[in-house]
Amino acid sequence: MTTRASGAADQAVDGGRIDAHLAAFAELSEPGPGCTRLAYSPLERAAHAVFAAHMAALGLRVRTDHAGNTLAELPGAGAGKDRGDGGDGDGGGDSRAIGTGSHLDTVPSGGGFDGIVGVVAAMEVAEVMVRQGVPHRRPWRFVAFAAEEGARFGQACNGSRMAAGLTGAADLAGFTDAGGTTMAAAMAAAGLRPDLVDASRWRPEEWSAFVELHIEQGEVLHSSGVGLGVVDVISGSTRLRVRAEGRATHSGGTPMHLRRDALVTAAECVLLGDRLARDPAHDGVRVTVGRLTVEPGSITTVPGAAEFYVDIRDTDPVRQRAAARALAADFAGAADARGVRLATETIADTAPVVLPDRVSAHARAACADLGLPHRVLPSGASHDAQQIGRIIPTALLFVPSHGGLSHVPEEFTLTPQIVAGTRALLATLRRLDGARV
Amino acid sequence: MTTRASGAADQAVDGGRIDAHLAAFAELSEPGPGCTRLAYSPLERAAHAVFAAHMAALGLRVRTDHAGNTLAELPGAGAGKDRGDGGDGDGGGDSRAIGTGSHLDTVPSGGGFDGIVGVVAAMEVAEVMVRQGVPHRRPWRFVAFAAEEGARFGQACNGSRMAAGLTGAADLAGFTDAGGTTMAAAMAAAGLRPDLVDASRWRPEEWSAFVELHIEQGEVLHSSGVGLGVVDVISGSTRLRVRAEGRATHSGGTPMHLRRDALVTAAECVLLGDRLARDPAHDGVRVTVGRLTVEPGSITTVPGAAEFYVDIRDTDPVRQRAAARALAADFAGAADARGVRLATETIADTAPVVLPDRVSAHARAACADLGLPHRVLPSGASHDAQQIGRIIPTALLFVPSHGGLSHVPEEFTLTPQIVAGTRALLATLRRLDGARV
Repeated sequence: MTTRASGAADQAVDGGRIDAHLAAFAELSEPGPGCTRLAYSPLERAAHAVFAAHMAALGLRVRTDHAGNTLAELPGAGAGKDRGDGGDGDGGGDSRAIGTGSHLDTVPSGGGFDGIVGVVAAMEVAEVMVRQGVPHRRPWRFVAFAAEEGARFGQACNGSRMAAGLTGAADLAGFTDAGGTTMAAAMAAAGLRPDLVDASRWRPEEWSAFVELHIEQGEVLHSSGVGLGVVDVISGSTRLRVRAEGRATHSGGTPMHLRRDALVTAAECVLLGDRLARDPAHDGVRVTVGRLTVEPGSITTVPGAAEFYVDIRDTDPVRQRAAARALAADFAGAADARGVRLATETIADTAPVVLPDRVSAHARAACADLGLPHRVLPSGASHDAQQIGRIIPTALLFVPSHGGLSHVPEEFTLTPQIVAGTRALLATLRRLDGARV
Repeated sequence: MTTRASGAADQAVDGGRIDAHLAAFAELSEPGPGCTRLAYSPLERAAHAVFAAHMAALGLRVRTDHAGNTLAELPGAGAGKDRGDGGDGDGGGDSRAIGTGSHLDTVPSGGGFDGIVGVVAAMEVAEVMVRQGVPHRRPWRFVAFAAEEGARFGQACNGSRMAAGLTGAADLAGFTDAGGTTMAAAMAAAGLRPDLVDASRWRPEEWSAFVELHIEQGEVLHSSGVGLGVVDVISGSTRLRVRAEGRATHSGGTPMHLRRDALVTAAECVLLGDRLARDPAHDGVRVTVGRLTVEPGSITTVPGAAEFYVDIRDTDPVRQRAAARALAADFAGAADARGVRLATETIADTAPVVLPDRVSAHARAACADLGLPHRVLPSGASHDAQQIGRIIPTALLFVPSHGGLSHVPEEFTLTPQIVAGTRALLATLRRLDGARV
C-alpha cells in the first residue's frame, strides 16, 4: 500500500488547516476558563454546523441524525457488493463503508483537544481525499458524534450509544442534568427528535470498519516520547450517584456525639474509594469522586445532606463490577455507623471493549509504513469507539496529551503530533479501504 | 419585686401578637425552603423597617446606626445620675440604660426563630411597657442587630461587633461573600455608611446592663423538658478557610499513583476535624465542615481544587486555639503526603465569654419569681450577647429549640415557650431597672 499516490496524500495533511479548525471550535465556548461546550447545548450544535459546512463545501453529502450525530459521506468507487476476495488494493467498489470521527462537546472548563482532534482529523482527511482525488473503493463516512461527555447527564458517549443501539428513545427521559433538564428535553430544545432516535441506529451490514483518533488523556505517550498509540482495550466505566442524608443542625449547638453529619460520611466514602483503588486486591481499577455537593452549605450548619458521584474504571469487567459492589457495601457500612441514611444508584455502566486485532493490525502497519513509532496501550477513558466497537470492527489511535492533562483548560497536543496522527489515520483508512475486514 | 403591677405586666405578654410578628418576618424571605434573609441584604433591611415601624408606633424614638443596627428607646423616669445606692425598686431615675434585642438576618434556608425570637420578644416587651404604663427608672433600649449570621461574610455578629468596637470601618473591605461582594460594598448598597461605623460604637458608660433572649439551637432544654435556660458561658469560634490544590486530570487516563486529588485531601481533612473533636484530649471542642466545594466538579475529572470552611467552637479559649493550631498542622501533613498544596487562613476568631453572675443572678431570680423552671447551661453558638458582653454586663436567656434543630427550615419553638421566655425577659429587665448592676 505504500504507493507513490498514498505517500503524496499523506504528505498533503496540513498543520495550518488543522490549527485553523481547532481555533474555530475553541471560539465556540461559554465564558470562563478553558472550553465549555456541553452536550446538546446550542454551542455544541453550532460546532456541528461548522463541521457540516466544511464537509458540504468539499461536496460531501451531509446529514444530522435524530441523536444529533452529524455524518458526511464521500461515495465509494462503485455500487458493487463486497466481493469477499480477501485481497488488498484491488481497486473495485465495495458498498460497505469505512468511517472515522469523534465528538465536539466538552466537559465544563475542559480543553480544546479532547474529541475535537478526532473531528478535525476527519475534516482534514476528507479535504485531502477530495483535493488530491485519492482513489478509493468504499464509501468513506466522517462523523461528529453528539454528547460524548458524561459531565452533563451522567452517561457518556450518548450519540455513539444511540448509533450502536445501546441507548434508545425510551431511555432519554431518565437522564437529568444538574438543572433538572432531561436529555430528551435538551435534545428537543436543540431541534432534535429524541422520540425518533431508534430510527438513527446504524446498520452494521452497511459498515466495514471504523477508526477513531483521540488524545490519550493520560501520560503514557507523553512520558515515553512516542507520538502514536494503538489501543488494544478500552476501560469500562461504572458510575454511581450516592446521596447521604443525616441531620442539619447548628454547628455550635450540637455536641459531636449527637451529630449525623452527611459530609463526614461522604468524606469517608471518598477515602474508601481511594483506598480500594490502591489496594493490590483491586489492582488496575481507578476510582474517582469528581463531583460532591453539600447541603445546606452554610459554615455554621452541620451538613444535612451530601451528594457525590463515583466513577469506577477498569479494563477488566469482572474487576470493574466487583469494585462497584464492594464500594456500595463499604459506603452503606460507613453511613450506618454514623446514623446517616445512604442511597447508592448506578447511573451508567459500560463494559470494557477489547478492540479486534484485525483492524488494529492495519493501524500498526500504517504507522510502520509511515515510519512513525507507535506503542500499543489500553485506554482508561471511554470513547465513542468503544460503543461503535460493539457493532462494527473498530480501531482507536491516540496522540499524546501534554503532561497527561485532559478535561482542564491546560489540555494540549502539539500540532506536529496531530499532523502525524492524521497521517496515520488516513493511511489506516486507506489500508482498510483496500482490505477485506 | 413580685409586686401586683409587675405580675399584671408579665401576664400581659400576648402569644397572638408574638405569632403575628413572627409570621410577618417569615414573609420576608428569598424563595426556597425555610427562611433566607441574608446579612445586609434588602430583605434584612426590610425586616429592620418592620421593627422600626412597630417601635415608632409605640411612640419610641427609633434610629438605625451606620452599622445597620436599629435602636428604639423608651426614656427613663428622670435625667438623674445613677446614685449607686445598691437598692432595688427605689423608683428614682437612672440615666444608664438597660437593653434587650437580637438579630433579624438568617442563614440560607434557615428558620424563622434564630434571632427573630429575641427581636419579637423586645417588640412585645416594649408594647407591654407602653400599653400598661409600667413604671421604670432607666431608659430601656430595644435593639435589632445587623448581620449576626456569619454565613454570608464568614464573620458572625457583625452589627454587635461594630457596636462593641471589635470590628471597625477599616476591616469591612476584608470580608467577602461567595459572589465577591465585600461587606463594605453590601452595606453601602443597603444605604448604610460603612466608612462611618466607628462613630456608631456604643459608649459603655451609657449602659447599665443588656439581656438577649434567643433559641437554644441545641437539645439540652428540649430533651430535659425545661422551658428556660440561663447561659453562663458562650463558646468562642475560630473559623478557617482551607484551599487544597492538586492537579485536575482525566479520571480514566490517570493511574492512582499519579494523582494529586484535591478532594481526597479535603476528605481526609474533614475526617481529621471530626476525629480531633471526638478525641478525649480535646474534650469539649466542636469541629464542623459545613461548606465544601470541588473544582472543576466534573464526574470524570480528578478534582484539581477543593475549598472548605472549618468552624471550631469551645467554651475554653485555650482549647479552642489549640484545636485550630493542631488542625492546621494535621491538614498540612495530609496534603503533603499526597502532593497537594494546601493553604489555611483564619477568617474569624472570637473568644468565649463568661457572662457575669451579677446580671445572670437577676435572670435566675426572675424565673423563680414567675415560677418558671430554668436550667443554667453553656451556649455552643455565638451570639450578639457575646460581643455586647465585652463592654456591658450582659445576660443571655434561652428558650427551647424543638428537636435541637436550628439553621434549617424545621427550626421551631412553641408559642407558649416564647411567651414564657418573653415574660422572663421582661421580669429580668424590670429587676435590672431597679437594681444597681
